[in-house]
Amino acid sequence: MLLLKCPSNPGTGKPETTAFRIIRGKDALYSDLVRLSALPGAPMTPTITAFERSPDRGRGLARDMRVRWALEEVRQPYDVRLVSFSEMKGAAHRALHPFGQIPTYEEGELALFESGAIVFHLAQRHAGLLPEDGNARARAIAWMFAALNTVEPPIVELGAARLTERDKPWYEERRPMLEDRVRQRLDDLSSRLGDADWLDHAFSAGDLLMVTVLRRLGASGILGEYPRLSAYIARGEARPAYQRAFEAQLAVFTAASAH
Amino acid sequence: MLLLKCPSNPGTGKPETTAFRIIRGKDALYSDLVRLSALPGAPMTPTITAFERSPDRGRGLARDMRVRWALEEVRQPYDVRLVSFSEMKGAAHRALHPFGQIPTYEEGELALFESGAIVFHLAQRHAGLLPEDGNARARAIAWMFAALNTVEPPIVELGAARLTERDKPWYEERRPMLEDRVRQRLDDLSSRLGDADWLDHAFSAGDLLMVTVLRRLGASGILGEYPRLSAYIARGEARPAYQRAFEAQLAVFTAASAH
Repeated sequence: MLLLKCPSNPGTGKPETTAFRIIRGKDALYSDLVRLSALPGAPMTPTITAFERSPDRGRGLARDMRVRWALEEVRQPYDVRLVSFSEMKGAAHRALHPFGQIPTYEEGELALFESGAIVFHLAQRHAGLLPEDGNARARAIAWMFAALNTVEPPIVELGAARLTERDKPWYEERRPMLEDRVRQRLDDLSSRLGDADWLDHAFSAGDLLMVTVLRRLGASGILGEYPRLSAYIARGEARPAYQRAFEAQLAVFTAASAH
Repeated sequence: MLLLKCPSNPGTGKPETTAFRIIRGKDALYSDLVRLSALPGAPMTPTITAFERSPDRGRGLARDMRVRWALEEVRQPYDVRLVSFSEMKGAAHRALHPFGQIPTYEEGELALFESGAIVFHLAQRHAGLLPEDGNARARAIAWMFAALNTVEPPIVELGAARLTERDKPWYEERRPMLEDRVRQRLDDLSSRLGDADWLDHAFSAGDLLMVTVLRRLGASGILGEYPRLSAYIARGEARPAYQRAFEAQLAVFTAASAH
């Protein structure tokens, strides 16, 4: 998002800030500016970033999927700016995301990073992702943090070992330990979920994040041991908003692969 | 917290819910109930849980420290219920915390788990931990998620390897890789912080969580490579609220060690 300030708009005679959307990467900056609308007050289409070519090959495991899903749940249209790996580590992108990752979120003068924070921002702004009742809302937010700070880390650690240490002599000896750390979380999560559809009554942003976190286990085979959690993931994936988000990220990968 | 409902209070002739605080562990439930005050509306002292005997030996690395610090920043008095390792994994505690950990937070009819969620709840309820301006508030919340989901996981992984794999033949070969994952985050964090005191203008719950996350690196020696981050941690530790919280958790460990 680019904001240009005019001291005086010739049409109105008043100072004006105008927002432009950058449709393609920064290289196309000057050719592809699209004027959006005059500020302030006009509704603005947010722009998120995603991998130009996702390493998950379109399986919806990259973290833009969480944000796309939340945007679809609240029916907020959005634009996507695709970034290459080298752009992601460049100064322009790091100004948006200090750790040089995706996704980011730009809406008017607001720029955010961290998928959890972006999902939370959307849930605060729109109805449908967090309960109205204060205590129920606090509990749903606790599940958001639980997904990202308690359940995801051992899952990411297991996945990283598979990616980067598979050829090391210690890999097979360490693997059961890493898997057991994941199982410890899944045992507890499955017990708490029980026969309920969602973690705390109605579907919330806590479920949205938890389902995306659990989906990262797909390649491990561990989910087969947890029928309740597998059914929980399937309920998430069956939501129309999930499906729209999934198709959108898959289309990016399919188009990139065609080149 | 235990809530007892009376269909009719003999004094007022009206239905009443009365809250009792449980002062000691669940074994002392019936001997140590303390009547708090009539609901609703009466201010209620929240109760958090902490380790009866913290494995960090009072260095303030357990996750109750985050919550204590936040409570001190907003000047909210609180009670602490200490739990043993076996109580932590029992059904009574798991009803509060699905993953059998500390801290938990009870306040009237609200029960929360996850240190990040509890700090956020306090920051929503009280002034002083999140900016009033909407965009600045969203950015501070992004730093909360960044601390817990981007910076903490590689730090915990490094610490866990030191604790559980130190005697394994692969430990010394893996250590540089784990340390480099941490350095990757610290490089980016230090660049973003620059010469500022805090991550986004005023001190916020994002800084509170980030400082507690970085403190976990104490034993690794890595912080010595990052003078800006070391000074940032020292600024956090110098806050009077931090110091009150630190003393309170240290007093628990000191008392437990005296037995």
